[in-house]
Amino acid sequence: MTTHFADSLLAAIESKRSHVVVGLDPDYALLPPVLRDKHDALDYDDDIQRRVEAYREFLFRLLSELESEAVAVKPQLAFYEALGAHGFRLYEELVDAAHSLGYLVIADAKRGDIGSSAEAYAAAHLDVAGADAITVNPWFGTDGLEPFLRRAREGGKGVFVLVKTSNPGSADLQDQELMSGARVFERVADLLHGWAAGTVGASGYSNVGAVIGATHPVQATQLRLALPGVPFLVPGYGVQGGAAADVAGAFDATGTGAIVNSSRAILYAYRARPGHWAEAARAEATAMRAALWKAAGRR
Amino acid sequence: MTTHFADSLLAAIESKRSHVVVGLDPDYALLPPVLRDKHDALDYDDDIQRRVEAYREFLFRLLSELESEAVAVKPQLAFYEALGAHGFRLYEELVDAAHSLGYLVIADAKRGDIGSSAEAYAAAHLDVAGADAITVNPWFGTDGLEPFLRRAREGGKGVFVLVKTSNPGSADLQDQELMSGARVFERVADLLHGWAAGTVGASGYSNVGAVIGATHPVQATQLRLALPGVPFLVPGYGVQGGAAADVAGAFDATGTGAIVNSSRAILYAYRARPGHWAEAARAEATAMRAALWKAAGRR
Repeated sequence: MTTHFADSLLAAIESKRSHVVVGLDPDYALLPPVLRDKHDALDYDDDIQRRVEAYREFLFRLLSELESEAVAVKPQLAFYEALGAHGFRLYEELVDAAHSLGYLVIADAKRGDIGSSAEAYAAAHLDVAGADAITVNPWFGTDGLEPFLRRAREGGKGVFVLVKTSNPGSADLQDQELMSGARVFERVADLLHGWAAGTVGASGYSNVGAVIGATHPVQATQLRLALPGVPFLVPGYGVQGGAAADVAGAFDATGTGAIVNSSRAILYAYRARPGHWAEAARAEATAMRAALWKAAGRR
Repeated sequence: MTTHFADSLLAAIESKRSHVVVGLDPDYALLPPVLRDKHDALDYDDDIQRRVEAYREFLFRLLSELESEAVAVKPQLAFYEALGAHGFRLYEELVDAAHSLGYLVIADAKRGDIGSSAEAYAAAHLDVAGADAITVNPWFGTDGLEPFLRRAREGGKGVFVLVKTSNPGSADLQDQELMSGARVFERVADLLHGWAAGTVGASGYSNVGAVIGATHPVQATQLRLALPGVPFLVPGYGVQGGAAADVAGAFDATGTGAIVNSSRAILYAYRARPGHWAEAARAEATAMRAALWKAAGRR
């Protein structure tokens, strides 16, 4: 039986009472000193192997620590790719470990290409690595997204399209005003209606979702109205400046339909919180979960 | 001493009298039957290992066969990523092998992200894997491209920005008309002037280039005028329908400044040409080289 990504996501939000996604963005310089010291002292073939082993210990511990707080984890592919083949293996291991703990897994790959290349990217992450969902770049248009959309329609997979990203440079293209009066990111939202067709589950939500940066609260509210039944993935919470009040507009009237990602603020919470680094991460995730629950109008 | 990508590229065009780039897009179903039969009969742990070994034999032979015909090779990352960690290792091996044969290597990764993620992608391909250039997606805007542009300015690396892609769906966003009267892809071309600043070499060409599909001859001619001194990477030749006449407008008045990619038409030339598959590939590349040389106004 094929599971439906959006239905699973909305069920997880209710059962865990959480809209939290933890971004798995390992950075050696930011690892807890106790972990770094340990792996610095070990004898490895090279620096790549050292980082892979340190990241494995760090991330596996966090997975077991955060299981009650987060509905999904989001490995940022760039950090694994920078470790070459060993990094890619670690990514695959993380997907399996996260699944065994009951997390949904969103591959933050932001891939975009055409034809057989797009098909290969979709296969790489949704079939081979086995992630439940992937982030994709809309620049190529409809035919470039088709291999991902087919897996959303037929395989129950989730596909989050970059609509309005959290960085300042997102204005360079995404905010440009079209002759139609719409801005370019609104054009993407329009196209998304068609991309989401045929992927709506029992929850009323589609497997095709939208990425909307937490740094754009006005646009999030506007897009929530324009895209009912489309799940939102909201990055940029915490370190990038977005706060709970800023993401409130991403939730629907019943307080669901959006998940919010935090990476460094949770992973490296030990820098601002007392206690063991893993407990600090959990405390940060718990606080975020409570703040989002309230921002979503829940009690 | 740091080498300058665009200077190296223009020198290679002259010394090899070629504008040809060979796309390394391995596809098991299209491998020469003699190769497929051989690897089908061998005992492997799994299908991934079988494909990796068959691709290695196929692509390494092609690298040595095509060395005199092509200035660069362009591994399409999607096909390696679909083989997981083993595929990523093969990609790294191909970069090294291509360098030892004197090719420039363009990582066709089409990556795009922000902040530390963009930095990690740039490091993965330009530093760790060691490619000479990479294709990037402009959707995130200037700050997303900065880690790549820094390596173009300071490390001599090449960065090809997707301006107008070869697929029909490129119209969905790239062709949309802005209030300014420009289309979205022309806005990217405008921004590209700034991105290329500080990367111009002795050849007069910048390390920041543009990807323009061979299926858009009118736009290629227009963009050539708008972007003097910007190298063009033109995909879509051959199988996707672009012919030598269609890419003529991509060259400058002296018949340089553009390179043209063909993947399947060269790799799987055995399907249309007699003889050994490797010789068929070389014959196809030779014919493409001659056709492009003429289209560039050379003799």
